[in-house]
Amino acid sequence: MKKLINHVDTVLVESLDGFAAAHSDIVTLGAARQFVRRRTLKQGKVALISGGGSGHEPLHAGFVGHGMLDAACPGQIFTSPTPDQMLAAAESVDSGAGVLFIVKNYSGDMMNFQMAAEMLERDNATVIINDDVAVENSTYTTGRRGVAGTLLVERIVGAAAELGESLAHLSALGGSVNRCTASMGVALSSCTVPAAGQPTFQIGADEMEMGVGIHGEPGRRRVKMTNAEEIAAELTNNVLKDLSLKRGQEVILLVNGFGGTPLLELYVMVNAVHKILEGVGIRAVRHLTGSYVTSLEMAGCSITVCATDPSMLSLWDSPLHTAALRWGM
Amino acid sequence: MKKLINHVDTVLVESLDGFAAAHSDIVTLGAARQFVRRRTLKQGKVALISGGGSGHEPLHAGFVGHGMLDAACPGQIFTSPTPDQMLAAAESVDSGAGVLFIVKNYSGDMMNFQMAAEMLERDNATVIINDDVAVENSTYTTGRRGVAGTLLVERIVGAAAELGESLAHLSALGGSVNRCTASMGVALSSCTVPAAGQPTFQIGADEMEMGVGIHGEPGRRRVKMTNAEEIAAELTNNVLKDLSLKRGQEVILLVNGFGGTPLLELYVMVNAVHKILEGVGIRAVRHLTGSYVTSLEMAGCSITVCATDPSMLSLWDSPLHTAALRWGM
Repeated sequence: MKKLINHVDTVLVESLDGFAAAHSDIVTLGAARQFVRRRTLKQGKVALISGGGSGHEPLHAGFVGHGMLDAACPGQIFTSPTPDQMLAAAESVDSGAGVLFIVKNYSGDMMNFQMAAEMLERDNATVIINDDVAVENSTYTTGRRGVAGTLLVERIVGAAAELGESLAHLSALGGSVNRCTASMGVALSSCTVPAAGQPTFQIGADEMEMGVGIHGEPGRRRVKMTNAEEIAAELTNNVLKDLSLKRGQEVILLVNGFGGTPLLELYVMVNAVHKILEGVGIRAVRHLTGSYVTSLEMAGCSITVCATDPSMLSLWDSPLHTAALRWGM
Repeated sequence: MKKLINHVDTVLVESLDGFAAAHSDIVTLGAARQFVRRRTLKQGKVALISGGGSGHEPLHAGFVGHGMLDAACPGQIFTSPTPDQMLAAAESVDSGAGVLFIVKNYSGDMMNFQMAAEMLERDNATVIINDDVAVENSTYTTGRRGVAGTLLVERIVGAAAELGESLAHLSALGGSVNRCTASMGVALSSCTVPAAGQPTFQIGADEMEMGVGIHGEPGRRRVKMTNAEEIAAELTNNVLKDLSLKRGQEVILLVNGFGGTPLLELYVMVNAVHKILEGVGIRAVRHLTGSYVTSLEMAGCSITVCATDPSMLSLWDSPLHTAALRWGM
């Protein structure tokens, strides 16, 4: 295992300190690094809190800031944060309008966020993300997994929160964005969790894991490596089948790298997905291409399609200022 | 070799098409994909043109847009673009105020940009970037190599161009930014050029290449793998030695991933570099952390320090809208 780290036990702490130092205009760390929060809160706004295991950077801490999250709770690598972290974050960022938790559907995250929600003596609601169409039930999940679609929900609901929408409205909007968002990914290599010291899974020199999860958990099947067009076709067709879109539908397209795949290849995938979408009359009107929801250094990518409308696009386009995504300000 | 591609001969073309489709609000492709240019030009502004071998994405095409480049000429992977490409780009984006070429110091790039500059019947000047302190002369270079510091020059000169500064002023500014910018990198793994089909170099499971170039060319020495603090110390101390900064100096710090290193690790490096800078009284007042000047999927990173002053910071902070970097608009 070769990594730019000092010790497996201090990776997360040092990375959070580096993150906070680099983005001190946007964020501060909570006590004992339990959470990353906005430096400046907006009074009267519903507080959006997400979190999950680390190793998926820039998700979630990279999305804390104006127009997206108020706080993110980082667990150890691929490990859920604790209810204590979520409670501390909620106490820190709720300005009285209530707390919306945005939770990826993994058993550990679900259990801990649910405990926090029950213990929290403040108005709160939870949006559960389960955009991964690859498999029903998985290593760490009952039902579908929450993957890169989380970014879309955090962004669109975050934009609406900035406009002063109510907790009930934002909770419903989050559910709605989740339902019109679908993802599927493929891995060409495993990643190595520092504390484990060896690859999460073995994969042959000519194989790929189709439908992989963002912790390297198994997908639909292990298949022979093929070309970008065939990979794009399998991922995109499964995503489109799930969403049942009509011709002429406008979508946001996220081609997401898992951490070890160069941008050069991600744009080859964008090109391939575009041809497929054009072939079925779907119009990608907004694009995001890059490594945003990662699995450490895993090679591979996921395709996320979010069916959109003018009001969602207006939220998407509104001012945003986080460490990882920024526009309009 | 496992990559998200269709054929080694079409990687670049398909990737450029995907890039242009994803960022059609910012860029268009020149005829025969000779260059990527801004969709909308600003009349009377000096045109900034860069380029070089592909495989370093988002450099350079990802930096085309308001506040940075007017055009970028992509060569094949790790291969210089041709003078024809540069001439076509110059004809397309010069609005009468002249052309500034920004060229990384590699023999092929230097020769071809020089030919283009001589053939171009328009006012033009060239800024040469040679920020890599690792080695004098290298596999593809006479003198020092141009690496991640290129981003700093393109950004700061691009901002000044937007304000209407003259060709002579911008040329001098580019030279000045280059002189106060220094970089050094380390590789933990090789990359694989698609057309070659095998890793550019072999490296042991416990080794790293200290001072590596962005094509995997040799650095200062092959050494045993060590921890992030020691790596950060060697890179940062060499960079600081080159710049001879005084205590209290303000700098822009770029911790740049080479493509295969996760953001989690890059922030561990940011934390380590910060401690070193604090120890010698240097203040990092702006940060950029991510994979911006890459070597395909090579694991590793580089540290770039740019000594700055209020006027440079004002340029750095001014509105920017490219595919890879965006703020203030």
